[in-house]
Amino acid sequence: MRATLIYGAGDIRVEDVPDPVLREPTDAVVRVLRSCICGSDLWPYGSQPSSEEGQRIGHEFLGVVEDTGSDVSTLTAGDLVVAPFVWSDNTCEFCTEGLHTSCRHGGFWGTEGVDGGQGEAVRVPHAQGTLVKLPVGQDSALLPSLLTLSDVFPTGHHCAVTAGVGPRTTVTVVGDGAVGLSAVLAARRLGAERIILMGRHKDRTDLGREFGASDVVAERGAEGVERVRELTGGNGTHTVLECVGTRQSLETSLGMARDGGVVSRVGAPQYEEAPMDGSAFLRNITLTGGVAPARAYIEELLPDVLEGRIEPGRVFDHTVDLSGVPDGYRAMADREALKVLVRP
Amino acid sequence: MRATLIYGAGDIRVEDVPDPVLREPTDAVVRVLRSCICGSDLWPYGSQPSSEEGQRIGHEFLGVVEDTGSDVSTLTAGDLVVAPFVWSDNTCEFCTEGLHTSCRHGGFWGTEGVDGGQGEAVRVPHAQGTLVKLPVGQDSALLPSLLTLSDVFPTGHHCAVTAGVGPRTTVTVVGDGAVGLSAVLAARRLGAERIILMGRHKDRTDLGREFGASDVVAERGAEGVERVRELTGGNGTHTVLECVGTRQSLETSLGMARDGGVVSRVGAPQYEEAPMDGSAFLRNITLTGGVAPARAYIEELLPDVLEGRIEPGRVFDHTVDLSGVPDGYRAMADREALKVLVRP
Repeated sequence: MRATLIYGAGDIRVEDVPDPVLREPTDAVVRVLRSCICGSDLWPYGSQPSSEEGQRIGHEFLGVVEDTGSDVSTLTAGDLVVAPFVWSDNTCEFCTEGLHTSCRHGGFWGTEGVDGGQGEAVRVPHAQGTLVKLPVGQDSALLPSLLTLSDVFPTGHHCAVTAGVGPRTTVTVVGDGAVGLSAVLAARRLGAERIILMGRHKDRTDLGREFGASDVVAERGAEGVERVRELTGGNGTHTVLECVGTRQSLETSLGMARDGGVVSRVGAPQYEEAPMDGSAFLRNITLTGGVAPARAYIEELLPDVLEGRIEPGRVFDHTVDLSGVPDGYRAMADREALKVLVRP
Repeated sequence: MRATLIYGAGDIRVEDVPDPVLREPTDAVVRVLRSCICGSDLWPYGSQPSSEEGQRIGHEFLGVVEDTGSDVSTLTAGDLVVAPFVWSDNTCEFCTEGLHTSCRHGGFWGTEGVDGGQGEAVRVPHAQGTLVKLPVGQDSALLPSLLTLSDVFPTGHHCAVTAGVGPRTTVTVVGDGAVGLSAVLAARRLGAERIILMGRHKDRTDLGREFGASDVVAERGAEGVERVRELTGGNGTHTVLECVGTRQSLETSLGMARDGGVVSRVGAPQYEEAPMDGSAFLRNITLTGGVAPARAYIEELLPDVLEGRIEPGRVFDHTVDLSGVPDGYRAMADREALKVLVRP
C-alpha cells in the first residue's frame, strides 16, 4: 500500500510500504477513508532532523474495518470507525477516568512499529478500545465533521472543558488555526457567555464568528492583551484557551486572564518553562490543559455532529489525495490552507 | 504604641510609633490581642535590602475593636475580631466571587501608610469588609486556633480547595512548615482518602500525623518523588499541595503528581518560571493555587474551630511578647520554632 513518511524538515514523501496485517489478537486493520494533516504535524515538518529511514506520520483518520484479531468482539469487517489520535485499551484505570492519553497500554500513531494515519490502511493496536463505530455510510456528507472527532474538535473541547467553560464564562481563544476555531465552537457549545477570538487571518476569523466568536482581536502580544482588557472592563476573561503552543502565545494568554482565571493550553508546547511567577501567584491564575484524551469525548460529541447541530468539519478548506499530501503540508505551512483533508 | 519594623535582612526592631487613628470613615482601630510570625515573613527577614526608615511588618492578628469610622455600621467598640492577611471591601466583584485578594480596594498590611499586625494596635482600612467577629471572650482558650484564620489555616485550605481535594483524592503535602501542616489538616477536613506528608522534622511530621497524614516521606527531590511513587503503585497522587515556594519544591511536586493531577501552590514563589514543559503537557498536569483569599473562607471554617473539631492553633509552639518578636524571627529562621505566637 501507499503511506506518508517524513524524512526530515520539509521532506514528506508518499511511498510503497508493506500492507498492514494483524500482529496481536487485539489488533484490527482499517482501510482509511479519510485522513488529514494536523497543525501539530507542522512542528516536525518545520524542524525534524533528517533520517535515512523516514517515519510514518499522520494521526487522524476514519475508515472501514477490514480484519480483526481474535480478541476483538465488538467490531466486524465493514464497520465504519473513527480513530482518536492516541490508541488506548479503554479499560485501564486512566482510561476509566477519561484520561486515555495516559493509558497503560496506549501509544501514538507513527511511532516505531506503528502505522501512521496518512496512508491507505492502518494496523490499529487495542482496536476494541480505540475505535468508535460511526452509524453512517461511506458516502456520508458528514465524514469531514466525523473525522474531526479524531483530534481537532476534541482538542478544542478539552481546552474548553479543562478551563471550566460554562454559561457564565467569558473566553478568549488565542489562535485562529483549526484548533483555535474548534475551541471557539466547543466553548459556544458549552454555553460560554462571550468568546473573543484572537487571530489575524480574516477568512479564519470569519469562520470563527460563524462558530460563535462574539469579538475578534487582530493585535498580538502586549497590544492584544490591552485590547482584550479594553473589551472586558480592564479585567480580562475568566478563561483563556491557548491553541498555539509558543511561549509568546502563553505569555499573552496569562496576561489576558482575569484574576482567579484559567489558562488552558492544548497547543503542543514549544517551550520548557512557563512564566507562572509571583504575578500569576498573586492573581491566582491556573495553568491547565494538556494533550487531549479525544477517545474520552467522542461518544459525547458524536450526537451533535450526527444531528447537524455542529459542523466542526468546516475547518477543512483544502482536499488532496494521497499523492497530494506533501503539497498539503506545504499549503498548511504557508498558511494557504487552514486544514487539509486527505482522501487516499 | 509599640510596633515591629523590619530594617533589612535579619534586622527586626520593636519601636515606639504613633498610635493609629481613624483616617477614613471606613476605618476601624483594633487593639491587637494576638499576632504571630508567618513563614512568609522569613523571606524579607532573609533577604530584604537595608533601609533607614524601616517598614511595618506582620499580617496576622486578632484583637478588640477600639474605634470605628462613621461608615462602619456592623462593628462596635469591644467586638473581638480577626483580620485576614489582606484587607478588602468584601463588596466588589472579586470579593463577591470569593477572591478577596484581588479586591478592587484592598491591600496588604505593612505597606506604605498601612500598619502591620505585629504591634499593639492597627488601623484597619475597609474594616467592615475586612474584619470578622469572633463570638468568644478575650480570655478564650481558642484564641490561637482563631488566630490561624487570619492566614495559615485558610492558606492550607485554599491549597486543598484549589487542588480539588475530596473524599476520593490522594494527596501529597510538600513541606512540614505551619502551612504544610495546615494543608494536611485542611485535606483531612475535606475528606481526603490518603495524605502523604513530605518533611524531615520529626516533631513537625508527628503533628502532621495527628492532623491526618497517613504517611510521612523524609526524602527530598528525586528520591522523594520515587518514594511517593512507590507508595502509590507508581502513579503519584491526584493532588500535590506545594507549601514551600522554592523552585526545587515545585519540581518535586510536579514529579509526584499523578497523570491528570493537580499541583496547587500556596508558598510564595521564589522563582519566575515553572517547568510546565512537554512532559507536564503530555501528562495533563494542572498548576493552580496562589495567594489565599482568607477572608472568603473564615465563615466556613469558623464553626469547626469554635466547636473544637479542628485545632489549627496547634502549629504554635512558641510564644513571645512584643519585645520578644526579634527573637521569634530568629527562632523560626533557625527552625527552633514552628510558628511563633505574639502576645503584645
